[in-house]
Amino acid sequence: MIKQIAIVFLLVLAGSAQLLATSVERVEPMFWWVGMKNPNLQLMVHGEDIAQADVSLDYPGVSLESVSRVKNPNYLFINLKIDEETRPGTFDLTFTTGRKKTTSYTYELRDREANSANRMGFNSSDVIYLITPDRFVNGNPDNDAVEGMKELPNRADKDGRHGGDIRGIINSLDYLQGLGFTAVWLNPVLENNMTQVSYHGYSTTDFYKVDPRYGSNEEYLELSKELKKRGMKLIMDMIFNHCGSEHWWMDDMPMDDWIHHYPEYKITTHRRTVHQDPHVSEADRKAMLNGWFVPTMPDLNQKNPFMATYLIQNSIWWIEYVGLEGIRQDTWPYPDKHMMADWTEQVLEEYPNFNIVGEEWSMNPAIVSYWQKGKQNSDGYHCSLPSLMDFPVQNATSRAMQHEESWDKGLQELYEALSNDFLYPDADNLVVFPDNHDMSRFYTQVGEDVDKLKMGLAFFLTTRGIPQIFYGTEVLMSNPGTEDHGIIRSDFPGGWDGDAVNAFTGEGLSDAQKDLQNYIGTIQNWRKNKEVIHTGKLMHFVPENGLYVYFRYNDDETVMVVLNKNKTDSQLETARFEELIGKFSRGTEIIRSKPINDLSTITVPAKAAMIIELK
Amino acid sequence: MIKQIAIVFLLVLAGSAQLLATSVERVEPMFWWVGMKNPNLQLMVHGEDIAQADVSLDYPGVSLESVSRVKNPNYLFINLKIDEETRPGTFDLTFTTGRKKTTSYTYELRDREANSANRMGFNSSDVIYLITPDRFVNGNPDNDAVEGMKELPNRADKDGRHGGDIRGIINSLDYLQGLGFTAVWLNPVLENNMTQVSYHGYSTTDFYKVDPRYGSNEEYLELSKELKKRGMKLIMDMIFNHCGSEHWWMDDMPMDDWIHHYPEYKITTHRRTVHQDPHVSEADRKAMLNGWFVPTMPDLNQKNPFMATYLIQNSIWWIEYVGLEGIRQDTWPYPDKHMMADWTEQVLEEYPNFNIVGEEWSMNPAIVSYWQKGKQNSDGYHCSLPSLMDFPVQNATSRAMQHEESWDKGLQELYEALSNDFLYPDADNLVVFPDNHDMSRFYTQVGEDVDKLKMGLAFFLTTRGIPQIFYGTEVLMSNPGTEDHGIIRSDFPGGWDGDAVNAFTGEGLSDAQKDLQNYIGTIQNWRKNKEVIHTGKLMHFVPENGLYVYFRYNDDETVMVVLNKNKTDSQLETARFEELIGKFSRGTEIIRSKPINDLSTITVPAKAAMIIELK
Repeated sequence: MIKQIAIVFLLVLAGSAQLLATSVERVEPMFWWVGMKNPNLQLMVHGEDIAQADVSLDYPGVSLESVSRVKNPNYLFINLKIDEETRPGTFDLTFTTGRKKTTSYTYELRDREANSANRMGFNSSDVIYLITPDRFVNGNPDNDAVEGMKELPNRADKDGRHGGDIRGIINSLDYLQGLGFTAVWLNPVLENNMTQVSYHGYSTTDFYKVDPRYGSNEEYLELSKELKKRGMKLIMDMIFNHCGSEHWWMDDMPMDDWIHHYPEYKITTHRRTVHQDPHVSEADRKAMLNGWFVPTMPDLNQKNPFMATYLIQNSIWWIEYVGLEGIRQDTWPYPDKHMMADWTEQVLEEYPNFNIVGEEWSMNPAIVSYWQKGKQNSDGYHCSLPSLMDFPVQNATSRAMQHEESWDKGLQELYEALSNDFLYPDADNLVVFPDNHDMSRFYTQVGEDVDKLKMGLAFFLTTRGIPQIFYGTEVLMSNPGTEDHGIIRSDFPGGWDGDAVNAFTGEGLSDAQKDLQNYIGTIQNWRKNKEVIHTGKLMHFVPENGLYVYFRYNDDETVMVVLNKNKTDSQLETARFEELIGKFSRGTEIIRSKPINDLSTITVPAKAAMIIELK
Repeated sequence: MIKQIAIVFLLVLAGSAQLLATSVERVEPMFWWVGMKNPNLQLMVHGEDIAQADVSLDYPGVSLESVSRVKNPNYLFINLKIDEETRPGTFDLTFTTGRKKTTSYTYELRDREANSANRMGFNSSDVIYLITPDRFVNGNPDNDAVEGMKELPNRADKDGRHGGDIRGIINSLDYLQGLGFTAVWLNPVLENNMTQVSYHGYSTTDFYKVDPRYGSNEEYLELSKELKKRGMKLIMDMIFNHCGSEHWWMDDMPMDDWIHHYPEYKITTHRRTVHQDPHVSEADRKAMLNGWFVPTMPDLNQKNPFMATYLIQNSIWWIEYVGLEGIRQDTWPYPDKHMMADWTEQVLEEYPNFNIVGEEWSMNPAIVSYWQKGKQNSDGYHCSLPSLMDFPVQNATSRAMQHEESWDKGLQELYEALSNDFLYPDADNLVVFPDNHDMSRFYTQVGEDVDKLKMGLAFFLTTRGIPQIFYGTEVLMSNPGTEDHGIIRSDFPGGWDGDAVNAFTGEGLSDAQKDLQNYIGTIQNWRKNKEVIHTGKLMHFVPENGLYVYFRYNDDETVMVVLNKNKTDSQLETARFEELIGKFSRGTEIIRSKPINDLSTITVPAKAAMIIELK
């Protein structure tokens, strides 16, 4: 009962609705801000026969430009214009029907946070920690089961709700900060009121509401504030491609083309090359774009202008409300690409320094780079997406660690993957990662060889781009013998009362786990203020004899990184690196905190990385 | 002895040299033409102490612009300017030393063939037959052993000289024409006076002379004329990257930077990504570019302007002298890329419709496309190379045939490879090929499965691009269990007197071999006048159920191609292809010459291709 009250309280806060009649059930966005660059705001009003009503308002600086009625009379779209000089405050939206029956909704225009437009997005100075909220820390056991939510907690079920929440993440921030992480990306936190397997968060049932089992919109805001206190950033996971089949509008669709292939269901072909392929058939294009992922994920039609505006405003609402520093957009190539380009432009127009990373899960960098801001595509398509997940380099690093060294296998695969950076307008802004929530953990990928995991991590933390590490990597979480997502996203040790192993306190951790926490902490805390790693150039050398050597350098600093895949210590002659090493005589190795007094020949430990600051 | 006389006779023809003293041994190019777009001509003169001489000439329209002396006094570079109105004829180049000792060389300026500048290069209307001249047909056994040539014939040695020659190729043209081939590309025919393994032709010892074991410059010209009679084209294989270690200038180098790493030897790293990689080190760039292939192939320095001019003029000399329709340039990314860009521009300036295909042996279409004319590269590099060998599609087709069908293997690999065509400014001008002289024969690649070979051939002959077939493919030549080049380039059956099997007469051929000759002949002769295959658009559909369907189409014609990898006949429902098949009701299948009266469901034979003209 207490929970119910909390939810009602939230709704009142979000937009005080004087429901004089039953006809206005929702107004979205529930409130907005003055001082946005884009003066236009489209409100979606949902309520029985609301389309029959006339709308009026009276507020200085706010004009009612037009009202759009669609096929379903339970929807009304109100187009407002908010002048530059408009002051924050509230006003009534008055709905009047022919029979003088009147309903009103009190709309609020808030003041923006100082410097909101100029917030700095996540960038290559950051290291991102990716969290699956249900599986990290259960900070508030009271919200594990929430009335009205269709799925109950069941920690015994690998695909069930386990109880992790935003409170748990807030409680863990000192730990993450201590390890040198500077940003968190949470798998989606919006309501997923689905009947089963709802823990992953990718079946949104309300675009304006945090899932109550994770907490509330206010707790999400609190997380953001707690992060900012620590100089850390928040990245929100968004999904424009689909919603959950239990989304409230599925019972009362605004118009026929709101969802593709509805009410029949058609699965997507997942053939994502349709965007670039000059030989593509229209049939294949539509089959990929308009098909659904699974029957529980209706495919949204972003070509519908009301849908497009709804999604774009929703994203801006969250940026502004929570104070986000970034967005991770799911399944990038599945929504309409022109709408997605519009979206990136509108977001960057409001927040020029913001960052968005798109998930184009392709091993082909020509495909991935197609989407990045500044790319000159032969078909003329242009998108302003600043960042992409670097799947090609993820895959290459994994292969580099797994494969025996040969002419074209092993470290050479990594070298060649990075050589493809010429395809990207801005490779420095790609997100690099050993793994994520959708694939086998890197530790498992490399055959649960800690040395290879450590080498891989040293690489991701020192190459170009923005590193992202999946929760639990630091304590050797693994998924041996299975690719099951429920196992990959297992509970973080120490996140639940009574856990025998606790990554936060160190209780029950093996020496290898402690060593890895220390390893990651050492590199990441060093990296934190190491401008040359954030923005320095990269130069690498063809791998030879099982050794891959690269440098990050700028006018002030030079860092040399060596990956040694050999099973014995190696003597590395450095004459080959003269063009970068030439002006230095000594160095400091960061991982082991040891001086190197002679750079001409360096002893590199077996199966290990060295990170050397040259002096 | 007779052969010696023939060679002297050739030299006299090529440029009549009045050797009043011993000091002029060579003038190259030996003669030139009036009426070229580029008025400049640089003659390389080689002779003892020739640099001490003054040079003069007297011919209307020809001016001596300058004379360049280099480190080695045995060389002189004479820069001539030939005015637009200059008439053909001869004049004396007079060399006078301080002591009045005079030598002269009679230089000839020839008239050009009519319409020489506008010749049409090979293009997508052609099918190219690739011949290794030593291994095809021995048309003239008298030139198997030639006095002065260091390697003697030895047909028992897989790496030895076997005796094939230009006369043999001339004798085979009716056969090739009958099969529907419209162009021939010969592996290099210039002199390779090496001590061993000289048959492949890639170690040039004289850039102006056909290897006498293949014939003479005149016979090469005769081949060109015989081809033209049949409407066929000639493509010359050129190598700008290196020469042979027995090249005459290796004993008397013009200057120190004529050859890289000389007299010491350094092998190339073959890491060709150095051209595109934004992170490349200068050390790796040089190691790849300036290294040698093998100790018998000195690496030419194309940055040396005299070398650059020498090579460019040499190529134009052969185009003009023999009447080439195309050049295949070996090892494209190894010579200096700026010189190579200059070369392509100069050739296309002289012959705007000419074609050149470069060998960039990469599976990465982003790398291959970097070189093509019209590509907008992020580093600003621009090359006018019209065509490239499509190694990515070669490799994908081979994998498509070898791999079992699955989500991402088999025909899907081919589909995805073609999807990458967005990277090319002009994918229609790529050369597509099942194999070549440097790789396992396609028949062997696909496990000596004739059905797969035939499917692959049907693909190459109907997809976009210019098909190229390696000699002997039509009679199932193979290299089972070995990648040995000497075996891959085995003797063509029927090319030698006494061969038990003769592909020309059919004697001794198996039914499968005869069937394949017929199969290729049928498709190629149909293709010859099929504009829609030459220049029509390509549309393909995601492979489903082991079937890959694509169309070539233009305003007038539509051809449907089906590849069926299933081991049983398949019923293909065509509703999915509505956008292209919709306006047609019936068709004719080309391979089997059979009508198809109902297009709604097509029965596709197991493991086979269908080529259907829609009506």
